[in-house]
Amino acid sequence: MALEHKKAADFSEWYLELVQSSQLMDYTPVQGCMVIRERGYAIWEKIQSFLNARMRKDGVRNAYFPMFIPESLLKQEAEHFAGFVPEVAWVTHGGDEALGERLALRPTSETIMYTMFAKWISSHRDLPLKVNQWCNIIRWDTKALKPFLRTREFLWQEGHTAHASKEEAEAEVRRALDWYADLCEQLLCVPVIKGKKSDAEKFPGADMTTTIEAIMPDGKALQCGTSHLLGQNFAKIFGIRFKTADGKEDLAWQTSWGVSTRLIGALAMVHGDDRGLVLPPLVAPLQVVIVPIFKTEEDKKMALRSAEKLIAALDAKGITTHFDERDERSPGWKFNEWEMKGVPIRVEIGLKDLAKQGMTIVRRDKGEKEFLDDAKAADYIATQLDAMQKDLLLRARAEAQSRMFEAKDYAEFKQLVEKGFVKAGWCGDARCEEAIKEETGATLRAIPFDEKPKGNCVFCGKPAKETAYFARSY
Amino acid sequence: MALEHKKAADFSEWYLELVQSSQLMDYTPVQGCMVIRERGYAIWEKIQSFLNARMRKDGVRNAYFPMFIPESLLKQEAEHFAGFVPEVAWVTHGGDEALGERLALRPTSETIMYTMFAKWISSHRDLPLKVNQWCNIIRWDTKALKPFLRTREFLWQEGHTAHASKEEAEAEVRRALDWYADLCEQLLCVPVIKGKKSDAEKFPGADMTTTIEAIMPDGKALQCGTSHLLGQNFAKIFGIRFKTADGKEDLAWQTSWGVSTRLIGALAMVHGDDRGLVLPPLVAPLQVVIVPIFKTEEDKKMALRSAEKLIAALDAKGITTHFDERDERSPGWKFNEWEMKGVPIRVEIGLKDLAKQGMTIVRRDKGEKEFLDDAKAADYIATQLDAMQKDLLLRARAEAQSRMFEAKDYAEFKQLVEKGFVKAGWCGDARCEEAIKEETGATLRAIPFDEKPKGNCVFCGKPAKETAYFARSY
Repeated sequence: MALEHKKAADFSEWYLELVQSSQLMDYTPVQGCMVIRERGYAIWEKIQSFLNARMRKDGVRNAYFPMFIPESLLKQEAEHFAGFVPEVAWVTHGGDEALGERLALRPTSETIMYTMFAKWISSHRDLPLKVNQWCNIIRWDTKALKPFLRTREFLWQEGHTAHASKEEAEAEVRRALDWYADLCEQLLCVPVIKGKKSDAEKFPGADMTTTIEAIMPDGKALQCGTSHLLGQNFAKIFGIRFKTADGKEDLAWQTSWGVSTRLIGALAMVHGDDRGLVLPPLVAPLQVVIVPIFKTEEDKKMALRSAEKLIAALDAKGITTHFDERDERSPGWKFNEWEMKGVPIRVEIGLKDLAKQGMTIVRRDKGEKEFLDDAKAADYIATQLDAMQKDLLLRARAEAQSRMFEAKDYAEFKQLVEKGFVKAGWCGDARCEEAIKEETGATLRAIPFDEKPKGNCVFCGKPAKETAYFARSY
Repeated sequence: MALEHKKAADFSEWYLELVQSSQLMDYTPVQGCMVIRERGYAIWEKIQSFLNARMRKDGVRNAYFPMFIPESLLKQEAEHFAGFVPEVAWVTHGGDEALGERLALRPTSETIMYTMFAKWISSHRDLPLKVNQWCNIIRWDTKALKPFLRTREFLWQEGHTAHASKEEAEAEVRRALDWYADLCEQLLCVPVIKGKKSDAEKFPGADMTTTIEAIMPDGKALQCGTSHLLGQNFAKIFGIRFKTADGKEDLAWQTSWGVSTRLIGALAMVHGDDRGLVLPPLVAPLQVVIVPIFKTEEDKKMALRSAEKLIAALDAKGITTHFDERDERSPGWKFNEWEMKGVPIRVEIGLKDLAKQGMTIVRRDKGEKEFLDDAKAADYIATQLDAMQKDLLLRARAEAQSRMFEAKDYAEFKQLVEKGFVKAGWCGDARCEEAIKEETGATLRAIPFDEKPKGNCVFCGKPAKETAYFARSY
């Protein structure tokens, strides 16, 4: 049951086969829209728990706003509207009736949320206001669609905050970006680069966009999350004004930030192999599968008795288990299936194991069999789950590192950008950025924080104002 | 800060003022769509946790399906389509492009889900399949819109299952209905009647619909959740076939069931009073608020020191607390605000309390002040939270009981139905049901399970085939 396409040979086809065969998703009759199946959605729920805990501590509260945005409302911030209008889906009829004004399905919720913020905020005492929403988003993309990475409907969270000062808003932007980096690295074992976007790549309507970017195994960049400093732009247009402590009137400073179900795609791409998914233990809905190897019902019962003790011991440690007792499938078939689904640890219990009062343990990322005494198995498994979580991040870091380059000149840049991320000097002129994009297909992914510019612009040769990462991207 | 409208005098206006003033919701520029604010959404999250736990135990797994349903797909089950088409919102354009086929925004997801079920199910080994989705739903209602109870967009969960036998499917229908009844009674303290719907009131496309119905304080019924036996109707149309254990082919038996954010409205209606919301402790996002009464900073610090011990003790019991230290608001103002928001227990700590090494405790539903020694406060509060959860259900049961009647004849029926639920005999003829509806505005809400018919049809006088509850409804 290994995948037909190989990761090294045909990455793109391998990915498509992987996410469908492992039952993370499936295609639907609705073009550009997929089902996130149970195994995929369970990963999303882990992501939700991780972020909800961070947000709650920071005073962010969840809420829900309408998915319909009247066209006139979406139009209020001109730059914002221009940025999103090409990919908006429009509702024109309710029942038999044509609507007086067509309604956009939210491509993002700044305009509808800030209309409400203006109503709720009047004093510095109402600040900061921090609201988050978990919801579906519609962007009628015409670019190459790809499961999880680009679909016309996807799920995300969008945090929106209003503050009394620019400093506070800036701190919130960085705080959210740090949650996202932690989420990617600590939970998903996907290493990321933090930085800010160029003006050409920033969010429509924002003063500044910060981003986390991951390097996929084919060398392409995947934007994994963004956090925007909106300044007072939206506050001005939607009238989010407040009385300051000394009785003056001021406009609120705002931020917005989000991550989406595309992270599930990043996870699959980075860790998957030719046998299927590899899930980091912390994000795996099922952490340990126990496969009995038996010929008779008596053997199976003995294996079950042995497994029951292990299950109880793992349960006490908060580790999730499943005993695969199906009669109609062979052990080998089951091994393949659980490998495809990325379960971190497989335990085999056969007659040989039982005779030695032990069991055989296999880590999904290593594939080596280890025999362990019954008495030591639960502790060992717990240790191995921790180790696997760390190892996957380390391996992914090393792989990412092998795809990061520095270019001294444009000739070198053009060669290296075929292989991954290229760090290079940039003069800050959008025309150089645009020319690089046209000639190489690479965009400016991120300007890393706190890195001094050095040398010259890789395109025009003028002194560099920034050091930036360039790459082709999803 | 009490409400302007009184619950007893002007129930409808009171409700509208209540849900907005307590910040459960707010109106938006999108007609028929509201914001579920942080305090409302937190209640929804409690409902989600409650149901997720039940569903998980039953083997139901969460997933996510597209919100777009191509018109041709929605049309496949004719009765289903006819039932929903009057209130479907249609997407006709993506970006600048007119779509080849218009897309419905899901009014429910049977058609899109079962298209996929047909793909996933081929053997009895694939059954039962139990999938649930938490999502937004669009129904372009033109009836009287009301926050939570009827809005054009709302949130719900929809469980969908497929089984190898009718018996299994029937058991699932009743199991889900039991979860819903438990949810309403144990979590929300809203008593419900369980029963089945008449053919006229059942879900379009179902063989049978079961329901839980609650009586609101104005005597109207609120349908709080439904669970449908779909039989093999959809399986036939969407081709959900499976090989049985003995090698034959059969069609799957199906169920679907859901509850929505309208439950938050039920909760507010049933328990709220003229001072605002009253939240059952188990569903209250904040359970205990501590209000210091102070004139000087020194007083406030002393109150805080006393509160800190209480907070730690309650925290250890898993009880959520908030210390309201705002300087700019008087204690009385704070009392009113927290009463409006329905916080179950208020603790006051003033100089007099501190002098006696104690604190004053007030239950939201009783409003009486009780003085307690510091040492006993935490245990007492825990006891009172349990008691309040029980008391609210008992009180709501008694109130509901006072609005339930039995009618011997149609004259009596017409009088009683002005006041609440009326239990009466019914011959089973849809024409009698329709006539009752036209003449009194009351619909058949539920035919209670396991209740023998007695006497005659309240409308036509023929022998009763069923005993049924009739009421006007939201």
